[in-house]
Amino acid sequence: MANIAYWNLKKMKTTKKYILHESDMPKFWYNIVADMPNKPMPMLNSQTKQPLQPDDMEAIFAHELVRQEFSAERYIPIPEEVFDLYKIYRPTPLVRASGLEKALDTPAKIYFKNESVSPVGSHKLNSALPQVYFNKIQGIKHLTTETGAGQWGTALSIAGQHFGLDVKVYMVRISYEQKPYRKMVMRTYGAEVIPSPSLTTEAGRKILAETPDTPGSLGTAISEAVETALHSPDTRYALGSTLNHVGLHQTIVGLEAEKQMEIAGDYPDIVIGCFGGGSNFSGIAFPFLRHKFTEGKDVRAIAAEPASCPKLTHGIFQYDYGDAIGFTPMIPMYTLGHDFTPASIHAGGLRYHGAGALVSQLRRDGFVEAVDVDQIETFKAGVLFARNEGIIPAPESAHAIAVAIREALKAKEEGTEKVILFNLSGHGLIDIASYEQYFCNELQNYQPSANEINESVSKLDKLL
Amino acid sequence: MANIAYWNLKKMKTTKKYILHESDMPKFWYNIVADMPNKPMPMLNSQTKQPLQPDDMEAIFAHELVRQEFSAERYIPIPEEVFDLYKIYRPTPLVRASGLEKALDTPAKIYFKNESVSPVGSHKLNSALPQVYFNKIQGIKHLTTETGAGQWGTALSIAGQHFGLDVKVYMVRISYEQKPYRKMVMRTYGAEVIPSPSLTTEAGRKILAETPDTPGSLGTAISEAVETALHSPDTRYALGSTLNHVGLHQTIVGLEAEKQMEIAGDYPDIVIGCFGGGSNFSGIAFPFLRHKFTEGKDVRAIAAEPASCPKLTHGIFQYDYGDAIGFTPMIPMYTLGHDFTPASIHAGGLRYHGAGALVSQLRRDGFVEAVDVDQIETFKAGVLFARNEGIIPAPESAHAIAVAIREALKAKEEGTEKVILFNLSGHGLIDIASYEQYFCNELQNYQPSANEINESVSKLDKLL
Repeated sequence: MANIAYWNLKKMKTTKKYILHESDMPKFWYNIVADMPNKPMPMLNSQTKQPLQPDDMEAIFAHELVRQEFSAERYIPIPEEVFDLYKIYRPTPLVRASGLEKALDTPAKIYFKNESVSPVGSHKLNSALPQVYFNKIQGIKHLTTETGAGQWGTALSIAGQHFGLDVKVYMVRISYEQKPYRKMVMRTYGAEVIPSPSLTTEAGRKILAETPDTPGSLGTAISEAVETALHSPDTRYALGSTLNHVGLHQTIVGLEAEKQMEIAGDYPDIVIGCFGGGSNFSGIAFPFLRHKFTEGKDVRAIAAEPASCPKLTHGIFQYDYGDAIGFTPMIPMYTLGHDFTPASIHAGGLRYHGAGALVSQLRRDGFVEAVDVDQIETFKAGVLFARNEGIIPAPESAHAIAVAIREALKAKEEGTEKVILFNLSGHGLIDIASYEQYFCNELQNYQPSANEINESVSKLDKLL
Repeated sequence: MANIAYWNLKKMKTTKKYILHESDMPKFWYNIVADMPNKPMPMLNSQTKQPLQPDDMEAIFAHELVRQEFSAERYIPIPEEVFDLYKIYRPTPLVRASGLEKALDTPAKIYFKNESVSPVGSHKLNSALPQVYFNKIQGIKHLTTETGAGQWGTALSIAGQHFGLDVKVYMVRISYEQKPYRKMVMRTYGAEVIPSPSLTTEAGRKILAETPDTPGSLGTAISEAVETALHSPDTRYALGSTLNHVGLHQTIVGLEAEKQMEIAGDYPDIVIGCFGGGSNFSGIAFPFLRHKFTEGKDVRAIAAEPASCPKLTHGIFQYDYGDAIGFTPMIPMYTLGHDFTPASIHAGGLRYHGAGALVSQLRRDGFVEAVDVDQIETFKAGVLFARNEGIIPAPESAHAIAVAIREALKAKEEGTEKVILFNLSGHGLIDIASYEQYFCNELQNYQPSANEINESVSKLDKLL
C-alpha cells in the first residue's frame, strides 16, 4: 500500500463544487431594464405598428407575465410555490473546472454553473415553473408551446404536471424525427407532442402546402402554438426564450453564481453563455452586468452563438416578428429574418432567428460581445470537457465551453490569470446522437474551409 | 397580485434536499464483514474446489482490489485521488420525496438518496473510480468489463479516461441493439464497445456456435471480458457488482445518507435498494445494518428485485459460477443458475443470475428481506415518481420506488408514521425507450395474470 496516497485533511486540494443551501437561494429575480443605460425600444403591435400595450399580449400570455414583460422594477419576487419547486434542483452547484484547466495547462481559473443537474437536464425549468404558476393562478387550464432541440418542451411538460395544467408541445419536425428520446421524455411527463408544421393549425397547413418537405423551424412551431392558444379562452402560450420575462426568470442562475463566486473568493473577468434566444446567456450575464452598470466593475459578457445561426455576429438590428407567420408583435432585435430556416443538419438548439430585445440593445451599446463557433470546434470542445469533467455537455452548452477554452488558451499565451465563468446550461445525454454523428460522419466527410480550421481547432486536436 | 403567495422566510416549508459539503464526505468505506454475525462462506477455486486464495484472483483483478475482497477490516480508507474525483458529483443530495408523499397521501416520510446526479447518471461511478485507480497504481494499462443495461460500462469508461487507462466493454447484445444511446455515451468517453457474444473470444465463439440468435447475457459478457483480460499481462478485468469490494465502494452512499438523515432529524425504519448483483443495495443498506449489528437498532433492509430475475426470492442458495462459462471462482450465493438467460423483453438491468456472497449470507440469516416486483408495477411507480418529483428514474431504481410506495401505502392503512429511505440509484433519461415501450405496447398488449394485478398496481392506477 506504499504507493497509495490516502486522503489527508491537511493537504485537501481545491474545492471542486461551491454549494449553497436552499435557504441561501435568491428570493427575487433581477430585472436589468432598471439599470441598463439605454432602455430597449418598444415592441410594436404588428397591425397598427404602434408601441405595444400590455393588453395586446394578454390573449397570448398570462397577465402576470405580461406585467413582468413591461416592468422596469429592479427586483421581482419569486412566488413561494415556485420557490418550493425550485428546491427540487436549486441552488445548483458552481463548479471549478479543474480537470479542464489541467488539460489546457492554463493559468486561467475556469468556473461553470452546473444547470444540468435539473431533472430535465437544463436551465429551462427556471422559467417553465414560474410561467406555469402564473398561468395557473389566473385559472388557465391548457398551455401550448414550441420546442426545437426539446429542452424547453421537456421543462414545460413537467412544470405543467406539477401545477396540473395540460401541455401541448409543437416540436420542430426535424428534431421530432432525429430526437425520439426527447418526445418520449415529454410523454412520460404527460404532455402531448406534435411534429411541426402540422395539419392541426392554419399556419401549419399553409407552410406544408408551400413546402411539404420542410424540416420545420422554431418560427413555424411558434406560429402553430400561438394560433392554438388564440382559439381557446382558457389556453395560453408559453415561450422558452427571447422575451424579457423569460430572461428575468433565468437570472436566478447568475444571482446564485454571484454568491458562490464570493465564497470561492473570485470575481469573473469574463462571463460566457451560449446564445439561442438569449435566456441562458441573460441568466448568467445580467446579474454581473448589473455590477458594471451600478459599480463600474470590469466584466466582459460574451454570447457564444453557432456559426450556422449567427444573428448577433452577422444579423441586422431591426424590427422583426418573433415567429414565421407574423402572429407575434414586432421586436427590436438582431435578426436573420423571421423566415430563416436553419440547415437540417443542425438540430442542436440555438437555431432561433432573433436575439431578444434586451440583449440586442446591450449588444448595440457595446456591453455584450458576441462570437460564433462552428460545429467542429463545438463538438471537440464538448468531448474535451466530457473527458476531463465527466459531464457530457448539451451541444448548445458546448458553444460556451468552446469560447471559454479560447479565452483560457489566450490567457495561457498572455500568461495572465483570468477568471472565466460560463453557464453549463444543460447535459447532452438525451442529445448524444449528435456526438455520434460528429464521431461517425462529420469528421470523415467534412471538408473544412480555411476559415473553419481555425487556430482553436488545431489546438484542441492536440489535447484530445 | 393579491393571489400570489410570495416567498416568506417565516413560513419556509420543509427542507427538500439535505446537502453535505465536500469536506463532510466520508474518508473511509465500510466493510460489513467486520460486523456480520455469520461470516460469508469462502469462494472456491473452480478447478480445485478448495477455498479460493488471493493469489488465485490476481491474474484477473488488481492486487489492492483482491486485498479488499478478502479483507475483514471494518473501515478501508478512500485514496486521495479517488476522493478528489468523487467531488465531481459527491456528496449527493438526500431528498425528501415530498411530492410523492403528497400524491400517496401517506403519513410515512419518504427520503431518497439521489445518486442520479453523477455525470454518468448512476451510482456505478462510486466503484469505477477506485477500481481504475487501484489498477493504475499497479501499472495496468487496459481494462475489460461487461455491461448489461449500460450503466456500469458507462461509469468505467469515464473512470478509465480520468486515470488514462483504455477500456473495452462487452455489452450484452440485446442491450447493444436496444440502447444505442448507451454505446454512444461510452464512445464519447473514449471506450471501445463490443456486442456480446462476439467473435473476438473463444467463449463468444462457442456460445454463438451453439445459439447464434442469443440475445446475450451478463454471464456471457463476463466470460468474454475475463478471457480477454487473462490473455494479456497488463490487462485486468473490472466487475460492477456482486463482489465484496464493489459493495464496499458503494457504502459511501449509505455513509453519506446516515449523516444526512441525522441532519433531517430522522432515522429510517426501512431501507430499500433495487437488486441486481447487489452493489447499490449494499451501498445504501450496509451502513444502516451496521447499527443493527453493533447497537441493536431496529431497521428493515429490503432488496427489490424484478419478478423476471428473482434470485433472492426464488433462487437457491448454493455454490455457483459468476459467469456463464465457468472462468470465475464459485461463489456461495442465491442463484438462478449460471446459464440463466433473462427474457429479451427485459433489458432494464438487474438481470444478473446471482446475488453476491455478502447479501446472500445476510439474507440466509434473516437480516435482509427480499421482494419481487413485476414490470407493470415498476413502470407505474416510475411514472408516478417522475410526475411528482421531476426525476425520471432508471427502470432499475423504479423497482425500489415501487417497494417504497407499497410500504408507504401500508403505513397509510395502519396509520403509522414510518420513515422510509430508498436509493435512487440512477435516472432513466438514457433508458427512456423502455418507458415508451411501456406506454405504447405493454399496457395495450399485456395480459396480466391474477397474481400480477396485485393490490399495489390497482392503487397506483388511481394515482396516475
